[in-house]
Amino acid sequence: MIGSLIGKGPFIAVDWGTTNRRAWRVGPDGVAEAECEDACGITALAPGDFAGQVAMLRETLGDLPMLLGGMIGSNRGWRETPYVACPADARAIAEAIMWIDPQTGIIPGVAQERRDAPDVMRGEEVQIIGALASGLVPENATLCLPGTHAKWVRLCGGRIAGFSTWMTGELFALLGEHSILAPQMEGKARAGAGFAAGVVASAECDPLGHLFAVRAAHLLAAPMIDGPGYVSGLLIGAEVRAGLRTSGGEVPHLIGRPDLNKLYAAAIAQVQGNPAASPPAMDGNAAFRAGCSALLREFA
Amino acid sequence: MIGSLIGKGPFIAVDWGTTNRRAWRVGPDGVAEAECEDACGITALAPGDFAGQVAMLRETLGDLPMLLGGMIGSNRGWRETPYVACPADARAIAEAIMWIDPQTGIIPGVAQERRDAPDVMRGEEVQIIGALASGLVPENATLCLPGTHAKWVRLCGGRIAGFSTWMTGELFALLGEHSILAPQMEGKARAGAGFAAGVVASAECDPLGHLFAVRAAHLLAAPMIDGPGYVSGLLIGAEVRAGLRTSGGEVPHLIGRPDLNKLYAAAIAQVQGNPAASPPAMDGNAAFRAGCSALLREFA
Repeated sequence: MIGSLIGKGPFIAVDWGTTNRRAWRVGPDGVAEAECEDACGITALAPGDFAGQVAMLRETLGDLPMLLGGMIGSNRGWRETPYVACPADARAIAEAIMWIDPQTGIIPGVAQERRDAPDVMRGEEVQIIGALASGLVPENATLCLPGTHAKWVRLCGGRIAGFSTWMTGELFALLGEHSILAPQMEGKARAGAGFAAGVVASAECDPLGHLFAVRAAHLLAAPMIDGPGYVSGLLIGAEVRAGLRTSGGEVPHLIGRPDLNKLYAAAIAQVQGNPAASPPAMDGNAAFRAGCSALLREFA
Repeated sequence: MIGSLIGKGPFIAVDWGTTNRRAWRVGPDGVAEAECEDACGITALAPGDFAGQVAMLRETLGDLPMLLGGMIGSNRGWRETPYVACPADARAIAEAIMWIDPQTGIIPGVAQERRDAPDVMRGEEVQIIGALASGLVPENATLCLPGTHAKWVRLCGGRIAGFSTWMTGELFALLGEHSILAPQMEGKARAGAGFAAGVVASAECDPLGHLFAVRAAHLLAAPMIDGPGYVSGLLIGAEVRAGLRTSGGEVPHLIGRPDLNKLYAAAIAQVQGNPAASPPAMDGNAAFRAGCSALLREFA
């Protein structure tokens, strides 16, 4: 039944996160024909708001089939959508979509149900499926998805075989907003000398032992060139070093915001000792739209 | 002149921090004869409040000579008291006391003016001098002072030769108050099975890669036995491992709050693989009072 309604024409893809929401009208060729982005993340809304919000999105983008991914499927979202267990592929995820009605589906997240390494994702699985469907990542690969809760993902035979989450983005935000380092962390992290110094310092396996230097240097009137860059370099550097150890040195494909991809690419090149090497990178929004298209094709 | 007024009878020692303040009347034998503790840290007071606050402390504890240590000497405190550079001993610190009047002195902090590892302390130097003066730590030793900004200190010939700061306590508080882990971090960290599991996980050199497991386990209905314990074990475990690498395995003397000393002692014993070994530990408040006594003796 669902297949008869969707999978052929344009549709709406919604990446509905904790604090932000991005929605696109996706054409048959996968191109974004229209988009809207706002701060109506799930925590900005009450439980009864979601149906009305979805109607408003259709008023803006067209009365079309809609796929929603991200935290909208969590226990704080519209309708809790159970995780699919690893290893998971596009078919398993498509089959577990929670259909609110025949035109409106919530994409499930993916869970790694390992007692020694429990982990979950919601939204990234759509980007991963999109990157695979676009032919931008091979079926056996290591992926890195930078963000608030960055993911390192192992793909085996086109399936999400396992993954680990790094709270790098959230820690960076916590330090910049609430810690004693906040005054020295104003502004955006950039891939410059400060970032590179942070990546170097992260090599000692104890990035947390270097954070306070940002404050101490300021007090000793020898301020860091770039506080946010240094802290970002420390945290991303530690993450990248651990990720590369786990992947056996295999360079990951990056899927994320272009500015974050750039920071991760710089850290990876530095850790690999090859400043010219640039890991393949894909825009996370494009990957999300491609992932929704691929999931709908499972019903065609 | 100063020597004629102080160093012979009882005096008041004040550990005046960012958020808290502890003051004691210290008898000639170094014993606390009276004390008061409150939340009148420097950030709770306006610049003009300090003289009045000091007068009130004297009303409570006696009209006696007073030594003040901690953030009271910072640029946000009563009177900025320049740091003494490493290597620093009791004499150098005593000579740099900022005398507001002949009966009231602010103890300077200590700075490590290394471009590659800038660092500062304010208050811990008093505890270190106290531990030395009490004969509880040898002149050549590694010390660890747990806290919001934990310090690992190298003593050489009775001087503070160098040190490094770990924002372990602040990070733990940030994660417990502001992060996505907060709901799973309610309660106090204790040295139990959860803490031990965190110390184990910190062994992989990437404690930050294990934090999210606390959240994921909860979502997968397999909650950690002890969220605050696990996170504390991860952070303290990472700090202790790095500290022991730096000290060449030399077990540090602990100076701090008894509950924190206990957590650090548990982590050290676990990392050393010797559950029976307990590092020597000294109460931080007793060390502070002893340090003030020792500084005053420099004027006797």
